[in-house]
Amino acid sequence: MNDSYLNFVNSPFGGGLVRSLGLPKPEVLRRYRADRPEFDGLIAIGAGREPRLLDALASLVASVGMTSVAHDSAALWVALANRRGLMTGRFEPAEAGSPGKLAALLFDASGIDDSSQLEPLHGFFHDTLRSLGKCGRIVVLGRPPEACASPRQWTAQRALEGLVRSLGKEARRGITANLVYIGQGAEGGAEATLRFFLSPRSAYVSGQVVRIAANGTIPHNAPAFDWRQPLAARRALVTGAARGIGAAIASVLAAEGAQVIGLDVPSARDALAATMRQLNSSALTFDIAAPEAPAQIAAALDELGVDIVVHNAGITKDKTIAKMSDAAWQGVIDINLSAQERIDDALLAGGILRDGGRIVAVSSISGIAGNPGQTNYATSKAGVIGRIESMAPHLRARGITINAVAPGFIETQMTAMLPFAIREAGRRMNSMSQGGQPVDVAQTIAWLAHPGSAGVTGQVVRVCGQSLIGA
Amino acid sequence: MNDSYLNFVNSPFGGGLVRSLGLPKPEVLRRYRADRPEFDGLIAIGAGREPRLLDALASLVASVGMTSVAHDSAALWVALANRRGLMTGRFEPAEAGSPGKLAALLFDASGIDDSSQLEPLHGFFHDTLRSLGKCGRIVVLGRPPEACASPRQWTAQRALEGLVRSLGKEARRGITANLVYIGQGAEGGAEATLRFFLSPRSAYVSGQVVRIAANGTIPHNAPAFDWRQPLAARRALVTGAARGIGAAIASVLAAEGAQVIGLDVPSARDALAATMRQLNSSALTFDIAAPEAPAQIAAALDELGVDIVVHNAGITKDKTIAKMSDAAWQGVIDINLSAQERIDDALLAGGILRDGGRIVAVSSISGIAGNPGQTNYATSKAGVIGRIESMAPHLRARGITINAVAPGFIETQMTAMLPFAIREAGRRMNSMSQGGQPVDVAQTIAWLAHPGSAGVTGQVVRVCGQSLIGA
Repeated sequence: MNDSYLNFVNSPFGGGLVRSLGLPKPEVLRRYRADRPEFDGLIAIGAGREPRLLDALASLVASVGMTSVAHDSAALWVALANRRGLMTGRFEPAEAGSPGKLAALLFDASGIDDSSQLEPLHGFFHDTLRSLGKCGRIVVLGRPPEACASPRQWTAQRALEGLVRSLGKEARRGITANLVYIGQGAEGGAEATLRFFLSPRSAYVSGQVVRIAANGTIPHNAPAFDWRQPLAARRALVTGAARGIGAAIASVLAAEGAQVIGLDVPSARDALAATMRQLNSSALTFDIAAPEAPAQIAAALDELGVDIVVHNAGITKDKTIAKMSDAAWQGVIDINLSAQERIDDALLAGGILRDGGRIVAVSSISGIAGNPGQTNYATSKAGVIGRIESMAPHLRARGITINAVAPGFIETQMTAMLPFAIREAGRRMNSMSQGGQPVDVAQTIAWLAHPGSAGVTGQVVRVCGQSLIGA
Repeated sequence: MNDSYLNFVNSPFGGGLVRSLGLPKPEVLRRYRADRPEFDGLIAIGAGREPRLLDALASLVASVGMTSVAHDSAALWVALANRRGLMTGRFEPAEAGSPGKLAALLFDASGIDDSSQLEPLHGFFHDTLRSLGKCGRIVVLGRPPEACASPRQWTAQRALEGLVRSLGKEARRGITANLVYIGQGAEGGAEATLRFFLSPRSAYVSGQVVRIAANGTIPHNAPAFDWRQPLAARRALVTGAARGIGAAIASVLAAEGAQVIGLDVPSARDALAATMRQLNSSALTFDIAAPEAPAQIAAALDELGVDIVVHNAGITKDKTIAKMSDAAWQGVIDINLSAQERIDDALLAGGILRDGGRIVAVSSISGIAGNPGQTNYATSKAGVIGRIESMAPHLRARGITINAVAPGFIETQMTAMLPFAIREAGRRMNSMSQGGQPVDVAQTIAWLAHPGSAGVTGQVVRVCGQSLIGA
């Protein structure tokens, strides 16, 4: 829970020592606080040929109230910003050695349709990266490769992944770099996602690729929302909510306005009650492994229904497979994977999860990359990814999205008990050189649960500080 | 080129020292040699409920001439093997402490259609993994998730990835673990792929997922092939063939019977000529960056056409993006990515690449995961992945496949020049605790170029010893 190295290197004495020894210097990440402005500072705008998303970006910049500066590559921006009545200027590189002043770098690559047109990306990041401040944000916008008209365009758009992942590893200083592919016709549905990636809420999300699809199935009677309380009047079920990441999820959803129902096992009844009491939320105690649990949960939610379901409950029972008991295998698969399937079936069949709803499941880097000693856990968490991918098309007609988050190394009671060397390796092997906090997972889930995230479905977003580990 | 740690720990003195210090002990990998049997030893067969691929496995076992033993989970195997006239027995666990005697573990998971049915996988690997010998092979067979009839089946099949990747990380001792998804109707097209994953040819390929599609478009006049010389009468163009990985590719394709045409830049003319002379192959010298090169290459190949194109030529010009010149960006993108596009266009437009042909491009782990200091290289190599994904559907009607290999840390002159600490980290951060050899990349390309690989297209296969690094 406590990363004493992070604290040490950010003390005056520790900082000097670490510099002289050439050790990694993790940045204290800027995280969202309700009492501080979420968006401030300068955004530099860059663009490739025929950028198609500048209008959407102008709306975003206006909405978050930041000031923009145009890089040479985005000459069109100045006229557009003037037309929209936005404060804007021209990008001037920081003087050598002076600290970066920019808060974010946004590049519109949507019009690039051939690999020979990628140069403006180099020009923009070459000129601006040094001017990006600590905990700055890099977002590249493109078109979903698989929806491109020609192989050449698909290739050029797919190439952006290699750039963004490299920038994330190169930038350091708490800077994140992410790639957002916005489908044709989805330009108006990107704001919630772009806000998330610009905000300190995405402090530990880097190197990710997110697609936004045009979604014609948002129910016409969908309530409007307020950016300050986007989950107001939404009911959210969170499993495994008594402690740790689950408690953080409940807390963030409640802060965004949701009426939270926390669920946990009977043995965690007291902790769950205490957590929910603080959040003015209600508690349900069920063992989700029990065959009758899905029907009982459905019955408990029946009267008012639910808008958001977060499948966070999970267990580990680590052993090499040669030493793993049948019970350890079965228990992990059942709780982490099959129980999610049974609960969703009960909530969907009864119409208890309402149209326009949100399902978010917690997967894991282990489910992506595999992990020794975790054949059961990794199998269950890879299955969760399969659930997301397979259910998304089925749920589209009802306007329900289903996504997963895959946490990397998160500072919890569980990781605090790891042996020192394994804990330190897990903490440092990512672009932030530190573990994440439960709130980082929770904020990512809140974005996916957002009413403005209707175009984001069937996706797996890692909350890992761009961990080196992957598949 | 020379991994002295690997040699040291496999010496009598070094082995003891490494054991007592608890250091990683890389295995000397068993690689293919024409003068040794490619397939020998016992295969243990396991299965989940209603396995649909046992017939295909029986054909494979008969074809490679190995002996099988049936695990309890695969009771059906014994009757099937008897019917097919195969030698078979029942699996008996090795005595504790005695070395593993099995050469391979094969599990047919194709009939599993719900997460609650995954237990036989645990039972099989729990019982058999300790009996698997050094450099043994694990192959799990399933159905492509995205083609499954129900979300439950899709989920269960997708879960296999987490298991296989964990087994690869757990097994060590030079053992590989891979997952092959065989589509409905593609059962007869799996042999070339299953042979590759059982063979010492796949020594450095682990943690990979490969799909085999039913491919109705194999030209009816496709020549038959001989498993000992599968590329006989095929003409293969290999770019960057003078040295290193390219020379190894040329050499392996020639050994498999292909008539190789090696291409390299004019400055490498002498090295190319020497390499090609040894292989009884012909040489072409062109600078592929030149605008006229595609037409010249097409003209040079025109008379006889070509069956296999291997895009191996590539360069690096590493710098952080703030220090990277425009020329360094453009040169790398152009040679590693755009030149491939131009050459393929010329060969496809002129019908010079024949129907039923094979394109294999060399991508990189950097293109998957990004790499600091390699924004240009990673962008180009991610673009190569886009090329594969976008071209595959276009080429299907002509029976042409297009795939990529993504090498991890391969022992070459380039990696030999890395600083010690970076070289050692790259070498050891994978399930084999060592770098791969150029021949490992070449053998993987030979499998993709194989006439029996018609159902494998649009895929990226890593040759990385299951590197920890990924996306």
